Amino acid sequence: MSIERLVRKELHGPGRRSATRRSGPPDPEMISLAAGDPNFLLPKYIADTINQAILDGYTHYMFGGDPQLKVEAAKYYSKYGYKTMPSQVSLTNGGSSSIFQAYAAILDPGDEVVAFDPAYSGGTMVPAYFGAKIVYAPLVKDDTGMYDFDEEELKKKINSKTKALYVENPGNPSGKVYGEKECKIIADLAVDHDFIVVSDETYTEFVWTGEDHFPIITLPGMENRTIVTMALTKMFSWAGMRTGWTISGPELAPYVGRAPGGGLSWPIQKGAIKALQDGYQFVLNMRKEYEERIEYTAKRLNEMPGIKCPKPQGAFYMFPCIEDTSMTSMEFCQKLVEEQKVRAIPGASYGAGNGEGNVRFSLIRPLSNTTMPSWFEHKKGYMLEDAMDRIEKFVLSHA
Amino acid sequence: MSIERLVRKELHGPGRRSATRRSGPPDPEMISLAAGDPNFLLPKYIADTINQAILDGYTHYMFGGDPQLKVEAAKYYSKYGYKTMPSQVSLTNGGSSSIFQAYAAILDPGDEVVAFDPAYSGGTMVPAYFGAKIVYAPLVKDDTGMYDFDEEELKKKINSKTKALYVENPGNPSGKVYGEKECKIIADLAVDHDFIVVSDETYTEFVWTGEDHFPIITLPGMENRTIVTMALTKMFSWAGMRTGWTISGPELAPYVGRAPGGGLSWPIQKGAIKALQDGYQFVLNMRKEYEERIEYTAKRLNEMPGIKCPKPQGAFYMFPCIEDTSMTSMEFCQKLVEEQKVRAIPGASYGAGNGEGNVRFSLIRPLSNTTMPSWFEHKKGYMLEDAMDRIEKFVLSHA
Repeated sequence: MSIERLVRKELHGPGRRSATRRSGPPDPEMISLAAGDPNFLLPKYIADTINQAILDGYTHYMFGGDPQLKVEAAKYYSKYGYKTMPSQVSLTNGGSSSIFQAYAAILDPGDEVVAFDPAYSGGTMVPAYFGAKIVYAPLVKDDTGMYDFDEEELKKKINSKTKALYVENPGNPSGKVYGEKECKIIADLAVDHDFIVVSDETYTEFVWTGEDHFPIITLPGMENRTIVTMALTKMFSWAGMRTGWTISGPELAPYVGRAPGGGLSWPIQKGAIKALQDGYQFVLNMRKEYEERIEYTAKRLNEMPGIKCPKPQGAFYMFPCIEDTSMTSMEFCQKLVEEQKVRAIPGASYGAGNGEGNVRFSLIRPLSNTTMPSWFEHKKGYMLEDAMDRIEKFVLSHA
Repeated sequence: MSIERLVRKELHGPGRRSATRRSGPPDPEMISLAAGDPNFLLPKYIADTINQAILDGYTHYMFGGDPQLKVEAAKYYSKYGYKTMPSQVSLTNGGSSSIFQAYAAILDPGDEVVAFDPAYSGGTMVPAYFGAKIVYAPLVKDDTGMYDFDEEELKKKINSKTKALYVENPGNPSGKVYGEKECKIIADLAVDHDFIVVSDETYTEFVWTGEDHFPIITLPGMENRTIVTMALTKMFSWAGMRTGWTISGPELAPYVGRAPGGGLSWPIQKGAIKALQDGYQFVLNMRKEYEERIEYTAKRLNEMPGIKCPKPQGAFYMFPCIEDTSMTSMEFCQKLVEEQKVRAIPGASYGAGNGEGNVRFSLIRPLSNTTMPSWFEHKKGYMLEDAMDRIEKFVLSHA
């Protein structure tokens, strides 16, 4: 018997995780800046709300999700200037499931999905499940080392098979924010070629340009050509809690709602309602901490020989260019783990390889002046300063 | 623009929910015996465990799921006589996601999946997402009105495209339990024709034959041809909490683990560990209540003119034959809602129509002598006796 005959062709390759991924028991000396898993401990009122929901018996099916959570998600998104109805919201169990639902609603075998390169791999691995193909349009590095939008490269990848464009705004790992200008270019292409924009808006609370997040769904012709994917994961330090949603135009939403979004726990939904209703001060506190972390790590990284690090326009990842260290991004990350026990993600693993030369550090450790409680692992004491000291030592030892 | 061009062909049809599905605000007079959503309120130690997990910061990513939950799930399944390793367990966010993961691991476009008719629709709707086709093998009614296994009908549906057979054991809605004899017939076919058995073992705690559940994965050649799907949903009255898993042979398990199972909330996983470690008395209490409910409703239903109702061998659904009422199963359910405000599910909606003539009632309301706390909706007071009184009134008015 051949297992290969029995399982899907798509799954035959090697595991899809980065080579720096942990296996075995955790090493207490390791500082991981890999996964984008915010360190902030949730406010106690979230635990209280969930506890009460279980005691009250909200442990049963709620098909389609808690209607109040749809109301709150619609209200939340409306703040970006797009009046959203609760019926346009489909609940999911987090950002990955939001993306999965979006693709599950639209992709038939043979379709093509265009994504930028580098791009978040959670957005580019899924189409293969539906027999669809990812086509990468490279971003281009500007003088500061920031990956930027390139209209001509994008246009080259669009053809009659294009069913969707995956856009993260803000971008991960790029840190790039697309404003009205870039959104209009994308929208014109979507309308002309009749494709859907899967607009991954996971990081909209973390835009550092001074401008508001620009929602592409508001542009002419885009309301029923956009599926916005969101989650509380980053917005509310909610990674392991699992809550997200998609928003799409009134005609598109019923189809999206029929695609699987993963069941989400009802007590957790009750907590999510509370977070959206009363949790904004917590978000503002996190914003302030992230800004300080970006300021600090940009300074530290740019002082290291061979490292050039632009400040992100959005999200909380540093994506420095490490080309001048003469290591590939994979070598850099592997040696950094082995020699200094700091975990990061090679740029080459985001897309078809255009992120090569860069490395992603998640700013998910506090600075020592933090006033916000962190979760248990961080009680052990490694701060962002420690991580930067180790990275500096590593870079100097290879200079 | 045509929305139909933009969304998946698979989603173009009408909604997939039963015609008796509720829309709008809930009617306080309605007694729903539709969804299989157990009424039991969870023990307080579950709420306490989850609360503490959130306060302790278990609100972060745990890629692959909590290792201890895999240990507990493996230990749990081992009780059926198959020594299971934690590495064979893939965690999911419930029974639907377990099924989804199983198919996502194996189905390529053009594959065929054989399912019995009638069958649980959650197991038969998913293959279309992967471009695979469901082929139904009818069960046959025996003299008591019980739907039974039919080897010849099954064999007719197997061909070179057959990638999987979906088997629920115990069956829903049929209430049929497959013992060693039926499992051996199925296993021989699976080995001869080299296909996988997706073995939906959701209801193994609720077998009423006096025999132990028989796990097909133990049969020769089946270890790496079986994907067992399970969930705490029914086993632990966990429907809206969302926790499940798949178990497959050592060679198959890595592929299954790479297929999406839906993220599951880490605090909820901590609760699930507690349930598997300390919750068995709760399961035994539920068993006792279900047995009393089956005893009572079988008696009541069989006293009604035109209704013939076998006792299920497993699970907690009554699936009486209503042919002699001269109504189709859809008419029966629609009129029962309109005239008596009792919700049930037409047999015709389970599969390709071979369940026509039967109606499914979920025994998810208590009898008035219950000693187990129920969730909030049931505090309003409708018991199984009330439901049976209304059904009797309905049947008599149409006799």
